[in-house]
Amino acid sequence: MARLSSNPENPLSLSHSELSHRYREVRTASEALCADLSAEDCNAQSMPDASPAKWHLAHTSWFFETLVLEAQPNHQPYRPEYRVLFNSYYESVGDQYPRPDRGLLTRPSLEEVLDYRQTVDLRLLECLDAGLEAPALDVVELGIHHEQQHQELLLTDIKHLLSHNPLHPVYLEGPSNDAAAHPPESEPITWQAHAGGLHSFGHAGKGFAFDNEQPRHQVFLEPFELAQRPVTNGDFLAFVEDGGYHRPELWLSDGFAASRAGNWRAPLYWHERDGGYEAFTLSGLLPLVEGEPVCHVSFYEADAFARWSNARLPNEFEWEIAASQVPMEGNFAERGRLHPEPTGSGRGVMQLYGDTWEWTRSHYGAYPGFRPLSGSLGEYNGKFMSGQMVLRGGSCATRRSHIRSTYRNFFPPDARWQFSGIRLARDLS
Amino acid sequence: MARLSSNPENPLSLSHSELSHRYREVRTASEALCADLSAEDCNAQSMPDASPAKWHLAHTSWFFETLVLEAQPNHQPYRPEYRVLFNSYYESVGDQYPRPDRGLLTRPSLEEVLDYRQTVDLRLLECLDAGLEAPALDVVELGIHHEQQHQELLLTDIKHLLSHNPLHPVYLEGPSNDAAAHPPESEPITWQAHAGGLHSFGHAGKGFAFDNEQPRHQVFLEPFELAQRPVTNGDFLAFVEDGGYHRPELWLSDGFAASRAGNWRAPLYWHERDGGYEAFTLSGLLPLVEGEPVCHVSFYEADAFARWSNARLPNEFEWEIAASQVPMEGNFAERGRLHPEPTGSGRGVMQLYGDTWEWTRSHYGAYPGFRPLSGSLGEYNGKFMSGQMVLRGGSCATRRSHIRSTYRNFFPPDARWQFSGIRLARDLS
Amino acid sequence: MARLSSNPENPLSLSHSELSHRYREVRTASEALCADLSAEDCNAQSMPDASPAKWHLAHTSWFFETLVLEAQPNHQPYRPEYRVLFNSYYESVGDQYPRPDRGLLTRPSLEEVLDYRQTVDLRLLECLDAGLEAPALDVVELGIHHEQQHQELLLTDIKHLLSHNPLHPVYLEGPSNDAAAHPPESEPITWQAHAGGLHSFGHAGKGFAFDNEQPRHQVFLEPFELAQRPVTNGDFLAFVEDGGYHRPELWLSDGFAASRAGNWRAPLYWHERDGGYEAFTLSGLLPLVEGEPVCHVSFYEADAFARWSNARLPNEFEWEIAASQVPMEGNFAERGRLHPEPTGSGRGVMQLYGDTWEWTRSHYGAYPGFRPLSGSLGEYNGKFMSGQMVLRGGSCATRRSHIRSTYRNFFPPDARWQFSGIRLARDLS
Amino acid sequence: MARLSSNPENPLSLSHSELSHRYREVRTASEALCADLSAEDCNAQSMPDASPAKWHLAHTSWFFETLVLEAQPNHQPYRPEYRVLFNSYYESVGDQYPRPDRGLLTRPSLEEVLDYRQTVDLRLLECLDAGLEAPALDVVELGIHHEQQHQELLLTDIKHLLSHNPLHPVYLEGPSNDAAAHPPESEPITWQAHAGGLHSFGHAGKGFAFDNEQPRHQVFLEPFELAQRPVTNGDFLAFVEDGGYHRPELWLSDGFAASRAGNWRAPLYWHERDGGYEAFTLSGLLPLVEGEPVCHVSFYEADAFARWSNARLPNEFEWEIAASQVPMEGNFAERGRLHPEPTGSGRGVMQLYGDTWEWTRSHYGAYPGFRPLSGSLGEYNGKFMSGQMVLRGGSCATRRSHIRSTYRNFFPPDARWQFSGIRLARDLS
Repeated sequence: MARLSSNPENPLSLSHSELSHRYREVRTASEALCADLSAEDCNAQSMPDASPAKWHLAHTSWFFETLVLEAQPNHQPYRPEYRVLFNSYYESVGDQYPRPDRGLLTRPSLEEVLDYRQTVDLRLLECLDAGLEAPALDVVELGIHHEQQHQELLLTDIKHLLSHNPLHPVYLEGPSNDAAAHPPESEPITWQAHAGGLHSFGHAGKGFAFDNEQPRHQVFLEPFELAQRPVTNGDFLAFVEDGGYHRPELWLSDGFAASRAGNWRAPLYWHERDGGYEAFTLSGLLPLVEGEPVCHVSFYEADAFARWSNARLPNEFEWEIAASQVPMEGNFAERGRLHPEPTGSGRGVMQLYGDTWEWTRSHYGAYPGFRPLSGSLGEYNGKFMSGQMVLRGGSCATRRSHIRSTYRNFFPPDARWQFSGIRLARDLS
Repeated sequence: MARLSSNPENPLSLSHSELSHRYREVRTASEALCADLSAEDCNAQSMPDASPAKWHLAHTSWFFETLVLEAQPNHQPYRPEYRVLFNSYYESVGDQYPRPDRGLLTRPSLEEVLDYRQTVDLRLLECLDAGLEAPALDVVELGIHHEQQHQELLLTDIKHLLSHNPLHPVYLEGPSNDAAAHPPESEPITWQAHAGGLHSFGHAGKGFAFDNEQPRHQVFLEPFELAQRPVTNGDFLAFVEDGGYHRPELWLSDGFAASRAGNWRAPLYWHERDGGYEAFTLSGLLPLVEGEPVCHVSFYEADAFARWSNARLPNEFEWEIAASQVPMEGNFAERGRLHPEPTGSGRGVMQLYGDTWEWTRSHYGAYPGFRPLSGSLGEYNGKFMSGQMVLRGGSCATRRSHIRSTYRNFFPPDARWQFSGIRLARDLS
Repeated sequence: MARLSSNPENPLSLSHSELSHRYREVRTASEALCADLSAEDCNAQSMPDASPAKWHLAHTSWFFETLVLEAQPNHQPYRPEYRVLFNSYYESVGDQYPRPDRGLLTRPSLEEVLDYRQTVDLRLLECLDAGLEAPALDVVELGIHHEQQHQELLLTDIKHLLSHNPLHPVYLEGPSNDAAAHPPESEPITWQAHAGGLHSFGHAGKGFAFDNEQPRHQVFLEPFELAQRPVTNGDFLAFVEDGGYHRPELWLSDGFAASRAGNWRAPLYWHERDGGYEAFTLSGLLPLVEGEPVCHVSFYEADAFARWSNARLPNEFEWEIAASQVPMEGNFAERGRLHPEPTGSGRGVMQLYGDTWEWTRSHYGAYPGFRPLSGSLGEYNGKFMSGQMVLRGGSCATRRSHIRSTYRNFFPPDARWQFSGIRLARDLS
Repeated sequence: MARLSSNPENPLSLSHSELSHRYREVRTASEALCADLSAEDCNAQSMPDASPAKWHLAHTSWFFETLVLEAQPNHQPYRPEYRVLFNSYYESVGDQYPRPDRGLLTRPSLEEVLDYRQTVDLRLLECLDAGLEAPALDVVELGIHHEQQHQELLLTDIKHLLSHNPLHPVYLEGPSNDAAAHPPESEPITWQAHAGGLHSFGHAGKGFAFDNEQPRHQVFLEPFELAQRPVTNGDFLAFVEDGGYHRPELWLSDGFAASRAGNWRAPLYWHERDGGYEAFTLSGLLPLVEGEPVCHVSFYEADAFARWSNARLPNEFEWEIAASQVPMEGNFAERGRLHPEPTGSGRGVMQLYGDTWEWTRSHYGAYPGFRPLSGSLGEYNGKFMSGQMVLRGGSCATRRSHIRSTYRNFFPPDARWQFSGIRLARDLS
């Protein structure tokens, strides 16, 4: 987002009409995600870290209203109270409704929030038509990417909510049982070597990127090798059956404490039944498919699994250099599956993109020379650079148009409700 | 509820047709309470002690299905999972869905729950028509009273939920502003003397009563006097303005700790504004009316106020003997106001019934010779006889047909979200 | 303590010289309790509810200095900071050092606290010699009883502290093993009937009593019967082995929650070993003696045991009327055993006094006409009349001279670290 | 500690006699730290993160007994229970006494622990004399460094304990008041530029180092500049007075939450008084000296201060390259001051070593190719590589012989009780 500084060398990556088009597209997509949800589903909040679907719909509109429209001449707020109700964490904008209580906001109704969206859309598209200029234009582009992030959160939050319901609700009709019953067998892990050396990482040049991916800078890497495929449910099952959750020597100290406190016995959403496992998915409770990438594990579990495997997690630059050498393709949200796909066979490092975010061993911090965006948007990323780990590559709930090889996602090491999985790495010496 | 033992000397208080009538009436009334609520409103849960309106609608049906219909021949459960989902606390029935998570049950939908109600109603009325016998008949009568209790909880829980919303939603169109602006001035407190002595208390004879009101037994009372009217908002405001919340000498030790921990500065739902107070009500945020009985105070606040007034709270028998001498009339739910009415002038002890429950200084415990109901219903009252205080007289959210002079309500001493208020007493010696 | 009002009809129960004598005696006794403890033992605090022995020694001196000496002419504080450091909970005296941090007060040292005691003693005895007058005299007498209470707490707090040490320290050389190996077998429970009726309870007349035992007043009792002996370890073992801790139907709702939260499986200090039990005592870890009264159970456990036994706990007046008819003798602290003695055979209700405090089903509240002492001493008892249950009869850690048939001890229903046990009662009808 | 693998290319850094000498020295020094403490002082624990002095004395002996002596022929444990009592966190050794309860271990007494130390010393010196071989020899050397770490913790833990005492105890007679009253004025901050580039970091070659400082590896640095002196109390006071603790835009999100939760208003141990500040030190409560390096700030406070200063914290390699170019001198524990010294004037980057640890912006993680020690010692450092930040340079409580330019200390970002301070850095571009 260096463009927010209106650097003439880094002009807006999209034309006005492209921007209008992308804006319409992303706004429609958010609402489509809620099409099969009831107003009740959209209102409930299953934990402080998750938000109601309705809140996501409102907050993404608040973003455009507060950070773009409010600065336009003659702006009338849709409803003044929304400025507080749907502010997520922007201290510079003002007060925020308490995060853990978002599920109590039964008013405005879902219908009213959809009307709010429509009103914001009309006004914003008018502004675009009228020739909105930088830096507001940059904020619109940022808002589109922001909304894509919330689309993924909306899906993981809904999954978390529905997982609490003993009726095992189905959000999305799932794959046929046949596929699940006869999945391709996973190939054994093989290792792809990289020579290391001094390379450049992070975003530069045209095209959108968040401030936390910048500036592009050099990092020296030791030689390493990367597993050609993600860790699968079958791999992880062997760890579980080997007592992995009960062996402190495999865990970081904080991780073992978190595991004990949370009574972890398997990845989130696994259910033991008759000696086997089922997994709760957005398509309900399904038999565990061993060939699929393991999902909904915390960094701590990923790290313990890696230690058990005599391997380690890659750092974020090892991941990035490998990802920069393969096409940016994979099982993204557009496929409509919203669940990882079984690993297949092929050449090179596979499934780096899509399926599941891959935990790295890199703590989320500022790149050398990092400059947060100015104004309120400076709170977007920078203030979370503490206590979180970097994940890379996007998941089955990420839009293809949202991801980049330089994209840095981040979550606390005990977070499990994202589509987060494991890629192994090893030192080469 | 000794009738549950089918004691022939204590026959069913109502005929079959009366019972059918009352059943229909109470079931319809519950649904009417939700008529102006959205599905979202009915799903949210504002704290573990409160339940969603939808859950109240379902649980009261579960009561009839599980405790009456299940024992009938050829019973088919409406949906087997409901047995767990809508079990409140009956360990002898089996597992319970975790109480603090009731707001996560977005499925079944409100519509489905209303269908569940209809199905249970059809079956239960069929059974009644077919000549249901004791003890099942007694359980139906109990279930009617049980549902009335939940009607009141539904109202206090909805009020608590809506109070968290900065939009100050209106559940019920309120009184005209004129009335609020010119309320009658409260008369000063005067005292009604009682001679004390050995008297009988508790329920006996015909008519429904809960097990905790029985058996009728003798208690010796010292001479005492009772305030002729409840404590008003105006009275309580003087306590607030005298620093009552900051003077430990006025408080029980646990009470002062609770007040400090909860940062209490005034009754629940009072909002300070421009040096005055407004109160959140089921009709939204309204100016505080000084002449109305104070409401939404905890036992601890009631006790501290009494000490500040050089008085004390009555014990439950002092209250009962006074109440047994006045007509059982008052501002009950039937009036549709759902808010206390200003105190007026008159003779004798006034407003003992309705308006607000009145905290007594009596700990909630078993009467001598207390026998809980047999079977699962034994869990109805007895197991809560610890850590709670007795309240008497019903409130503006209680049905007139639900209350008795012997009726014992009970809540923990820090509970504030019920319509709970204060009546003063003093020793006479 | 009505004498604190200097009522001429209720003169001081002791002469000046008797008071001096008792004062010396009680002060010496406190120090004797610490004679075999190290400075380290005396400093540590095992939980917020318990205090370090050194703190007990200091606070009991603070009581005399602050509430008696401070009011004398030309009083110089021993050390001004002690006024805060050793204030327990007297808000009217001023600030208090935070209770949970008492174990951090490594200064003043034990030696300095003993010097503080000596200084206070010298000054106080001088005052007594010089003819101290009421109401100060009454406070001295109260202070003596206050110190006896702290002597018992000192013992139970030390026991609680030492119980955390895997070295199982011995505070007091215990009984020979022979006695433990061949204890007399307990007689079966038999029941002593009482006719009930209207009787007077509480303290009146000469002799010291706390304000909470007064005034004497009438209570009507239904006919009841009382077990002739306390519940023994052997009795309680049968409850444990019958799954008593896992059967919710036996428990109060709060009790079962407390039991689950605390992972209770047996009385506090029982240790399972090789299928049997040992108990930690002030004489170290010893084999469980089945014939001894069960000890260190909470009210919740006592209540559940009673329900399992088809009985109930007595209320405090049932206990008092029985106790008023037997000699006030028993296994008190003077015997130096500091552990309950096995039940024996005999006539009438036995072991009401001493051995263990007996939980009653009575909530701790004010007697009709209760008046707290005036001034700071009004905080002594009255402000704790919430959330606690009454225990009666004293224990093996109570001084014989401290107890009365009207004496009311009180603890929260989940407290287990006192010498608290069980006496059963039943309705007679 | 690669020597633990007995790599012949990396022989023991010390001869047997040097090792014996260093062993005696370090053991004596630990005891000297407690010479002026009472047994009470040595027993108390002020928070779970801190340990009693006695526990430090015992645990450092446990280290030698369990990890060296236990493997020797005919070893008899000093007391078998100590294996659990004084195990800090070595899961591979076995159970551990609960960390938050260490202050409850009044037995063994301080005297017994000193006897334990003497016994371990005799045996260990015997072994050394008898020609102890690798890898045990390496463990002895590690144990010496381990004990030096605990010496620093002992001091910071004692300071934390004494800080809770309103008597403001003095551990060490302090500097004369004159010095405090007329401290040299601090020079303004100037910046020392570094060109960056690809450099090697971490330990290699002879001499002791922990596993976490290894292996030496290359890191690419951008150009940067470093403040010539640490941030002083005077600097930090300006931040406080500018409302720094109340301005969320200056803080990491987690940091502002920690600050709010802990009610932080100034560095730990600052006391406001009459509009000025005093600071609690190991020499009691003293007037705040503006020219001294600020101390007892968390990473969060350091980070917020840096942002307020339009600067940032250095990363650990920026710190290391600067430190490798200056002599390893400073205000270490040997000086006996145990408090930072005022900044002075001079050339180059000053006071990198000693005075206070300096927070870096580097998360504590594994160096590329990191290999934890084998066996139990693998738990020494590696399992804490999560949720902690790196600090560099040692403090006034660190032994000079303990520190290195490659030394990595680590604490959670909210820790304040260590001697932790701030050095500013800036990008150069």
